[in-house]
Amino acid sequence: MPDIIDFLRLKAQLQNFADARDWNGFHHPKNLCMALSVETAELVEIYQWMTESESNNACHDPVVREKTAEELADILLYLTRIADLMKINISEAVEKKLAINNQKYPADTVKGSAKKYNEYF
Amino acid sequence: MPDIIDFLRLKAQLQNFADARDWNGFHHPKNLCMALSVETAELVEIYQWMTESESNNACHDPVVREKTAEELADILLYLTRIADLMKINISEAVEKKLAINNQKYPADTVKGSAKKYNEYF
Amino acid sequence: MPDIIDFLRLKAQLQNFADARDWNGFHHPKNLCMALSVETAELVEIYQWMTESESNNACHDPVVREKTAEELADILLYLTRIADLMKINISEAVEKKLAINNQKYPADTVKGSAKKYNEYF
Amino acid sequence: MPDIIDFLRLKAQLQNFADARDWNGFHHPKNLCMALSVETAELVEIYQWMTESESNNACHDPVVREKTAEELADILLYLTRIADLMKINISEAVEKKLAINNQKYPADTVKGSAKKYNEYF
Repeated sequence: MPDIIDFLRLKAQLQNFADARDWNGFHHPKNLCMALSVETAELVEIYQWMTESESNNACHDPVVREKTAEELADILLYLTRIADLMKINISEAVEKKLAINNQKYPADTVKGSAKKYNEYF
Repeated sequence: MPDIIDFLRLKAQLQNFADARDWNGFHHPKNLCMALSVETAELVEIYQWMTESESNNACHDPVVREKTAEELADILLYLTRIADLMKINISEAVEKKLAINNQKYPADTVKGSAKKYNEYF
Repeated sequence: MPDIIDFLRLKAQLQNFADARDWNGFHHPKNLCMALSVETAELVEIYQWMTESESNNACHDPVVREKTAEELADILLYLTRIADLMKINISEAVEKKLAINNQKYPADTVKGSAKKYNEYF
Repeated sequence: MPDIIDFLRLKAQLQNFADARDWNGFHHPKNLCMALSVETAELVEIYQWMTESESNNACHDPVVREKTAEELADILLYLTRIADLMKINISEAVEKKLAINNQKYPADTVKGSAKKYNEYF
């Protein structure tokens, strides 16, 4: 099953949704970042008391999967709305970031050392 | 300029990236949700001291736009990674959520009242 | 009316609370940081759609004040629990931080320039 | 060693700090909640890639302890500032919340069942 999003279309859809409800006054980037952070916490809440192995097996639990899918969607919708207002091309930003990460964490140097994950201990 | 993401392809790319660095032990959903929340805070940090009008005009500032694009990309990459591990189809989750929001906030009832935005005052 | 907290007493109270409920297995620092971040988002949620002037006047609204008080208490309780498990003296940490801030933001240099608040624009 | 905070005194200290730097325009509750959430994420960042056992042993690592103490202090300072602007007595709010928690999670019912911690699975 494909999993493709056309963000130009989604941006327009969300703009229409806000227009139809007179919500543009609330939807400036500062407010939308706060809203995105609230949705992120609702995602964190699902996993906060899980052990590592419960977290690893969570994909087999339909309730957790469904709840996670809903929170990821909320996050992605606010993210898309912010990108639209800030005139950001999402796929371009992602490509750029992937290139940066490739340079920042070269596979052969990083491998095994996991330095990124041991910054504090 | 189009703005399309093929999440099947992106999921595979991120899995290869983690494989090549032996990072799979770190990448379970609980950890990735924490990482996503840290990236979200880096987005919030950009806007935290802005006034409403500065926030509304932020799209004209190339530095703020660039920084925002980078944080949105970070968030989207962790979101994609979580979706992959949780076997979630992102575009499907988004469509489902859009339908829920349409039912939850009918345009004619909500319009003008902005009830959603006045829950606490 | 005084506003004093004896954190040694509060730490002991919270430890007893967790003991009586067999919650110690859940209460390690990683989980408690996640829980603290979820409570923080509940605080953010109260203010997310307010304008600046609504935020400035929020102290006159008893419902917002009560809700804010409750979320601040939740945050402080998790903060105290983390400090206890990490063997941190809270008042000492605060004094140390105040001294750092005094050095980092000297009143005469910072005044008016608000540089701290203009990092990104 | 005692661990006591007089919040009336701390509130006044922070108000003086803001006055001396002309920061009152930035310090309304909405902005301060965002700032508190950014500090919370800096706390989460310390623990995000730790295993459960690393988290349990983190108190023996002086670097992690020091970093944690600093972030907890940052959180408590913003929390105190918000309480001051919202005219909230912190110790009173905490006492109230402890009473609520005692009622909400009666030791004999909750013990062993850990229902609170299994809401989603």
